[in-house]
Amino acid sequence: MEDARLSAFATVMQQESLHAVALVPGANFRRVFGKDFHQNERPLVVLALASGQAKAVVPHLEMASFAKLEFKGEVFPWRDEEGFEAAFQACGSAAGALKTIGVEGQRMRVFEYLALCRAFPGAVVSDAHKKISQLRVLKTPAEIETLRRAVQVSEAALEATLRQVRVGLTETQVESILLNELFANGAEGLSFAPIVAAGSNSAQPHAKARPDYRIQEGDALLIDFGARVQGYCADLTRTVFVAKVSDEDRVFYDTVARANAAGREAARPGLPAGELDDLVLRVLETSPYRAFTRHKTGHGLGLDVHEEPYIMRGNATALRPGMVFTIEPGLYQLGKVGVRIEDDVVITENGCEVLSSFPRDLRIVG
Amino acid sequence: MEDARLSAFATVMQQESLHAVALVPGANFRRVFGKDFHQNERPLVVLALASGQAKAVVPHLEMASFAKLEFKGEVFPWRDEEGFEAAFQACGSAAGALKTIGVEGQRMRVFEYLALCRAFPGAVVSDAHKKISQLRVLKTPAEIETLRRAVQVSEAALEATLRQVRVGLTETQVESILLNELFANGAEGLSFAPIVAAGSNSAQPHAKARPDYRIQEGDALLIDFGARVQGYCADLTRTVFVAKVSDEDRVFYDTVARANAAGREAARPGLPAGELDDLVLRVLETSPYRAFTRHKTGHGLGLDVHEEPYIMRGNATALRPGMVFTIEPGLYQLGKVGVRIEDDVVITENGCEVLSSFPRDLRIVG
Repeated sequence: MEDARLSAFATVMQQESLHAVALVPGANFRRVFGKDFHQNERPLVVLALASGQAKAVVPHLEMASFAKLEFKGEVFPWRDEEGFEAAFQACGSAAGALKTIGVEGQRMRVFEYLALCRAFPGAVVSDAHKKISQLRVLKTPAEIETLRRAVQVSEAALEATLRQVRVGLTETQVESILLNELFANGAEGLSFAPIVAAGSNSAQPHAKARPDYRIQEGDALLIDFGARVQGYCADLTRTVFVAKVSDEDRVFYDTVARANAAGREAARPGLPAGELDDLVLRVLETSPYRAFTRHKTGHGLGLDVHEEPYIMRGNATALRPGMVFTIEPGLYQLGKVGVRIEDDVVITENGCEVLSSFPRDLRIVG
Repeated sequence: MEDARLSAFATVMQQESLHAVALVPGANFRRVFGKDFHQNERPLVVLALASGQAKAVVPHLEMASFAKLEFKGEVFPWRDEEGFEAAFQACGSAAGALKTIGVEGQRMRVFEYLALCRAFPGAVVSDAHKKISQLRVLKTPAEIETLRRAVQVSEAALEATLRQVRVGLTETQVESILLNELFANGAEGLSFAPIVAAGSNSAQPHAKARPDYRIQEGDALLIDFGARVQGYCADLTRTVFVAKVSDEDRVFYDTVARANAAGREAARPGLPAGELDDLVLRVLETSPYRAFTRHKTGHGLGLDVHEEPYIMRGNATALRPGMVFTIEPGLYQLGKVGVRIEDDVVITENGCEVLSSFPRDLRIVG
């Protein structure tokens, strides 16, 4: 391979009968080159060819930053005032005819895809997202250490936030406290826009904080968030209750806590991801709250906040040491209350290590 | 139109001979529905048909949030364990044969595009990003007020950050102070990952903060960043000098400041965007620093941090009241020093209002 860092894709190309893999800035790009670029209106595409050649189409504006990658291959720069079409065409001519190109379907955008299709008019350009991302599924000890740090930052921010929660605050006020605490505690970015949802809003798995709802006594308060450190994403959820909790909500909470514990106990090498999901969901589905399940157990975590392995019914992928993912069972009674408890774990030789240590016992704040 | 909010696209469909427009979560979606969704591995697509019908493919997990949009049209939900293919197919059958579908090429991803292509096997699915985004190009007074607020938050954070800059800090330490101050001052999110670049790193237009470089006396310090408020993006750059400034750098700085001022003075309704770029670049290109120009004058600003109008050579679009964009000339001497001064302006009836008021005189900090 002209650029040795792209050798990781040789197997993918062989297995999938691809003549090339195209990368755009994002998690896979960063894992390969150690750096990343903003994904904006200026396409930047790197091609790893089965022939061993490497090519790149790069905005002129990014050329100095791109030079730092020490990319070994031909580069086709383009300037804003001329547009990117000619650079893609020149890249296509230089690469020669290709029959099949695999792309990151969940990351590459349509205008980049169409430019690639025009540059390689004889090629079938297909979604190889899962295969291309495969090189990131087993985390190195250094990656796990960075994830651990992202979790620590997140937990410190959560603790500081919960100490400031009071009856009468709005959800957006709590969100603002959380954001503030995240960056005060060392976050370099956010894994995603946090979810801060109280009362009936907690029953929306992906709720938006409301500026006009004041938190009341007895409300559940669900906080789902994560700090990013060196690009790596933590993803945690805790649900607490404000000022008091009803007996009913306590039983509801404990059901989710048992499902979460079952997942942490069962996660081990060799277990198919789908079976882990079954084990966790079984706790929820054999409870009186069966009707309130809404989603799978979890998702992989790394440079992307949602990546392989998906801990989901029917996924036959066997868990392996170095895989990092969330265990986040939840129950949602629409219009009333939702509870989710989410931890981040890494599969070890014998079982799993839970990266997150924030207490899971029912907590009353404010 | 079955859902009146989609009527905005009727003209687009007519002009572009499209049978449908497909929207994914993002700026256009939010402008239409007032809410947004995370863009993740679960596709969510809304179709506005020229026939007046509206259809949507929605992850089951998001159905409760989606219900809040009060979408008037047929919804095809899908669950994680079954995948999204059947929902797209059912949507395709219900919509009937379409010949042409326009999508947001810079926002929709390949896996959503390919699902749409499979659901409408007879259709040409093309990039209509510019036309679809057109409905956001003229900002309402309420939108301008929100942008003004995002700029105010950003400027307060910048002032607080600059007061903490000292010789010997690293770029990442300054970045961390900036992030902290942004959220302490009311940011709800970031327009993009900030650029904090000192010394020779300031000569990279899109530099990444270095953890191992300590700011030295006489360094330029370029900070390009923005707070997001209610989804709306500020985007500001100031370049300051640390402890002292050489006479050479002062002249260099003033050249960029004059280009920035020329842009703010010239921006007015009727002026083609490309001519504004020419006017600004002329200041740089008639200076001794001609060789150090690297990019166009600016880009539109709103729910996207880069959107129409692009203030770029050859863009014949006439500026109109309500257009909001950046004026951000820069000069970059590779390996030495870079200066960029970026303001956000809105075109008014007679000229423009500069939303940002952070001083532009050369400032020495620390």
